[in-house]
Amino acid sequence: MAVLYFTIAVSGAVFEGFGMAMFLPVLQFIENGQDVAALSQKEKIFNWLVKVFDFVHLPVTLLTLLASVFLLMMLRILTMYLRQVYSVWLTQEIQHSTRNNLFKKYMEAEYAFFDKVSTGSVINLITTETVRVGSSFGSLFAIFSNLVVVLFYVILLFLVSREMTLFAVCILGGASALVYFLVRHTKKISHQTTKANEKLSFLLVERLSSFRIIKLSATAAAEIDRIKTVSARVKDHIFEMNKLNARIDLFLEPIVVLCGISLLYASVNIFSMSLAQTGVFLLILLRLLPIFKELLRSRQTYMACSGSLGAICEGFERADKVVEGLGGTLSLDQLRNGIRFENVSFRYPDHEEMVLSGLNVFFPQGKITA
Amino acid sequence: MAVLYFTIAVSGAVFEGFGMAMFLPVLQFIENGQDVAALSQKEKIFNWLVKVFDFVHLPVTLLTLLASVFLLMMLRILTMYLRQVYSVWLTQEIQHSTRNNLFKKYMEAEYAFFDKVSTGSVINLITTETVRVGSSFGSLFAIFSNLVVVLFYVILLFLVSREMTLFAVCILGGASALVYFLVRHTKKISHQTTKANEKLSFLLVERLSSFRIIKLSATAAAEIDRIKTVSARVKDHIFEMNKLNARIDLFLEPIVVLCGISLLYASVNIFSMSLAQTGVFLLILLRLLPIFKELLRSRQTYMACSGSLGAICEGFERADKVVEGLGGTLSLDQLRNGIRFENVSFRYPDHEEMVLSGLNVFFPQGKITA
Repeated sequence: MAVLYFTIAVSGAVFEGFGMAMFLPVLQFIENGQDVAALSQKEKIFNWLVKVFDFVHLPVTLLTLLASVFLLMMLRILTMYLRQVYSVWLTQEIQHSTRNNLFKKYMEAEYAFFDKVSTGSVINLITTETVRVGSSFGSLFAIFSNLVVVLFYVILLFLVSREMTLFAVCILGGASALVYFLVRHTKKISHQTTKANEKLSFLLVERLSSFRIIKLSATAAAEIDRIKTVSARVKDHIFEMNKLNARIDLFLEPIVVLCGISLLYASVNIFSMSLAQTGVFLLILLRLLPIFKELLRSRQTYMACSGSLGAICEGFERADKVVEGLGGTLSLDQLRNGIRFENVSFRYPDHEEMVLSGLNVFFPQGKITA
Repeated sequence: MAVLYFTIAVSGAVFEGFGMAMFLPVLQFIENGQDVAALSQKEKIFNWLVKVFDFVHLPVTLLTLLASVFLLMMLRILTMYLRQVYSVWLTQEIQHSTRNNLFKKYMEAEYAFFDKVSTGSVINLITTETVRVGSSFGSLFAIFSNLVVVLFYVILLFLVSREMTLFAVCILGGASALVYFLVRHTKKISHQTTKANEKLSFLLVERLSSFRIIKLSATAAAEIDRIKTVSARVKDHIFEMNKLNARIDLFLEPIVVLCGISLLYASVNIFSMSLAQTGVFLLILLRLLPIFKELLRSRQTYMACSGSLGAICEGFERADKVVEGLGGTLSLDQLRNGIRFENVSFRYPDHEEMVLSGLNVFFPQGKITA
């Protein structure tokens, strides 16, 4: 399965890269008045292209060039679709089996186990944390496939212009380092958000389940205040986290824009590149910006959700220790006369005295005994 | 507050549009060998530009042109940041106050009310549905601001070339209609996903809360199967919904690519536009693609979440009818002697016979009476 994903991701990157790279010969073709002979002599890339087109018996015209761009783009879109569908499928499978296995483990646990863990925290584990484990795997895939695309683009840019690529890589590398430094608090805030969210769900489950006791003890006003405080904390943390996320744009975009503009200036006034070459460079940079942002975001999601994997594993282990099995060895189909306890004793696990000893009771069939 | 958001959204669109539009004179400037005098005579847009630059006493060079592009882009990035932060703030405020008011209402409800509603469904209302109401408002904002940006871009494209704009608008309009038709099932599947998710949370809360009864009645295996069935339904629905979402890309992108490529072909071979004009057209189209996708997605989010608003309102109304208040009119600071019931009668709301009648009890202070 991993091989399948790898193949899809790499072929997607190849189609994407070649599709964008094809814009260079197209723009050169337009810039030079659609003269194939002159271009083949001047540009190495056109020499190759003419050979490829000859091989499939096609003339090099604006129409065939654009048609090949279209074909590459279609292949890219198709692989992107497959990648997305496969990634969602895997994420959902992971969530589904985690959910079921956790529920099964907790149902198989000893009675005494539920005295130690709260229902609220188990529900949080099976719902919220399980979903987060799924998205942590999803973001890992996204990081991998976006890295492949970035790598491929860098190679292509390098083929168009060596100096400009080094320049762009240095600026973008510096920008990433800066953004990384600026949003380094995200992981902490994300953990705080999770904790606050957990606490809110936990409080809600516990308080609403014991609604009557709260009303009887006249602590409803205090509980409302408590929920308000925890809810405000959730609100503040999520706001803070989104502000940090918005700051990625605030810091990354100006650097990319500055990079693009200085590249445009340098390409014309220093490297005296053709408008076609400059255009392709700008197109690829514009395309790289969202991929870069997604990379940074996937990394953050992975970081934020990686804690959940630990929580889930711990939950499994904890329940595993106290597994009891789903039933006894005797099967109970129907009562003949009733249930008879003869000389039954019971002692709580941590206490020495017997709570019940020498108990003899008979519960007759068909009668309700409270 | 709405005025503030409106101002931010519109100025963001203006900065974005002018920033992209400025690429036209920049590319024309490069294409024509940086000759201002010749360009002013040939292009109307350059005439205006020279006047604006004269007004602020700046020469028209590649450096000053690029600097003004940079300035406009920075302003756009800043307004985008403000828009994002404001939208998150508002969404979180809505969630926070909905959460608290719902919890308060349910705490103030009569005892009997909780016999009719399940804890699981109340928790689902306060957690999941409240978050969805927040995102429905958030997506409404996103739709508005993206519509403003699209409108502004269409006006700009129209100024560059009338025929090409009509051509592009027709193709993109047709594409949107097609995509709209293809993903028309999304709303239904999204509702099914919500229902399945609700059922899963509900089952988990109810089953894990009554863990002991399930074990006592030896129905754990059946419950595990039940959770597995519901969890599988959640998995299938989410997978289906994401497949539909991925299909937006699968259908929209080829149309946009085809549109871009045929525009490139038409601009050169039919309308004989300059490479600079064609380049700006392609740049704007490339920029419009993600905005279009976001519009379609925001619309879907809004549609999917709009049901939650109804659920929340209904929950408020239902609890409102049975409000009891947080306490009686007498304040109870300390017991002097104890609590005395004299001739107390009690009847259940729907029954005629008295359950208690003429009850006389005295609970003395400082003693625990069960």
